[in-house]
Amino acid sequence: MSKKQTERLTKQQVSSGGAVGIYGEDAKVHEQSVRSASMNVLERLKQEYPRYQFRFRPTLLKQEINEKLHSIDKRLGKTLFVKNSSIKPDGGIIEVQDKEGKWRVILVSEAKFQGKDVENIKAGVLVGTSQDQVFMVAGNAVERVYKNINEVRNFMLDEYHFPYVVFLQGSNFATEIVQVFKPDGSFVEIRPNLGSLNRIDRVTAANYCMKINSNYCKNIFIGHNHSSIMLQAASIYARCEPWREDEMQQIMMDVANTSIGVLNQLG
Amino acid sequence: MSKKQTERLTKQQVSSGGAVGIYGEDAKVHEQSVRSASMNVLERLKQEYPRYQFRFRPTLLKQEINEKLHSIDKRLGKTLFVKNSSIKPDGGIIEVQDKEGKWRVILVSEAKFQGKDVENIKAGVLVGTSQDQVFMVAGNAVERVYKNINEVRNFMLDEYHFPYVVFLQGSNFATEIVQVFKPDGSFVEIRPNLGSLNRIDRVTAANYCMKINSNYCKNIFIGHNHSSIMLQAASIYARCEPWREDEMQQIMMDVANTSIGVLNQLG
Repeated sequence: MSKKQTERLTKQQVSSGGAVGIYGEDAKVHEQSVRSASMNVLERLKQEYPRYQFRFRPTLLKQEINEKLHSIDKRLGKTLFVKNSSIKPDGGIIEVQDKEGKWRVILVSEAKFQGKDVENIKAGVLVGTSQDQVFMVAGNAVERVYKNINEVRNFMLDEYHFPYVVFLQGSNFATEIVQVFKPDGSFVEIRPNLGSLNRIDRVTAANYCMKINSNYCKNIFIGHNHSSIMLQAASIYARCEPWREDEMQQIMMDVANTSIGVLNQLG
Repeated sequence: MSKKQTERLTKQQVSSGGAVGIYGEDAKVHEQSVRSASMNVLERLKQEYPRYQFRFRPTLLKQEINEKLHSIDKRLGKTLFVKNSSIKPDGGIIEVQDKEGKWRVILVSEAKFQGKDVENIKAGVLVGTSQDQVFMVAGNAVERVYKNINEVRNFMLDEYHFPYVVFLQGSNFATEIVQVFKPDGSFVEIRPNLGSLNRIDRVTAANYCMKINSNYCKNIFIGHNHSSIMLQAASIYARCEPWREDEMQQIMMDVANTSIGVLNQLG
């Protein structure tokens, strides 16, 4: 983050009356922001592809996932304990109708906020049990991100694309050194290689540890002796600073376009 | 659970001075128990296959997973923020040395405890903010189980087996109706179809919603138009009552044997 950005953020912070204001209400605002971006993507898709039918839905029933799995192989999709179980990605699910009238997923988005160290440092707040530490030891809530990724992977097992976008933000997801200024004018560095702080490594199994901040909507096929394996990689976008809604929208639009491209190629 | 078992548990509870005693120290004991079972499996393997070399390790470095991924495809295994990041399954990792001297994973085990309703009901404790509810609304910590599953899937992407066993226990994982007796002699039913209580559905994406309590160590290949997809399913064992160490050990031994069988078949 540049000095200029830091000053701007500090101003915002003061004008909104405290640390919380910068990132809005933290996780909640981040989630609402990705949902709002998703709704805008839906509108843009309708404009750009007027001949196609699109739909948005906030949830996907486990029952539907099971039916899909079962249609692929009779052994799969047989277990369900709570009848109305569903998944609810933060940004919902966007689908397009294909020539046969079937709805095909073209975008799923999630937003995860973890690590409020920037806000705490700017506000001059120390943390920890003795309230004498600059950094809060990072938690592991973000590991839950895999559940919905695995659910949607299953739902899309017969597709050639996997349009799953995850936006990570907060001090636990810094990809480069970020200088944060304390109220006294001195600064602290948030370093991405700090084990107690960075949690990106806890998410990267979902993209096979490929580079982050890239669109992996098109599935990768790799050789496996006499057959091949299909990789469904999540597109993980991470950084310390909050993702702006227009930035998320552009990334999501790219992924949705990639999905449509893959579906069109298949005829 | 039978009346007899209930009585036995109640006796154990009284003798150990409270609800906690039944399941030992809950999650911690469950984890130690799977670790101990894993060590016993290692000894049994050494006895049953005296010509093979086995090893146990508690952790697997992300760096190693990345190297494996990268050896499979140059695009994979490129991202690592915290150099010494590792995964640490509760029961550790057991490997066997193949003819070329390479170590191959034959068993990975995890234990998850969630839901203390049985203990609370037996002890006559009501829960919730007003302490007037019989059941505690279930949490979602178990969703973190996917992280290590996905990490080990990646590490074993070039194998034909996936020896990953998860033992789930606690009231959030009941597979059938369990009657739990209150101190006054009346009973409460823990029902597996109750959405506020059961969390098995939050884990089953890891086995493609196949039946639980089965050994899925051998990978399944399904057709995908012109190629095939390899499914790496976790073997999920779930129930309300605690898994005994000898039960876990037998299941783990079966999975390790399956691994060795698959490896031998490949020559």
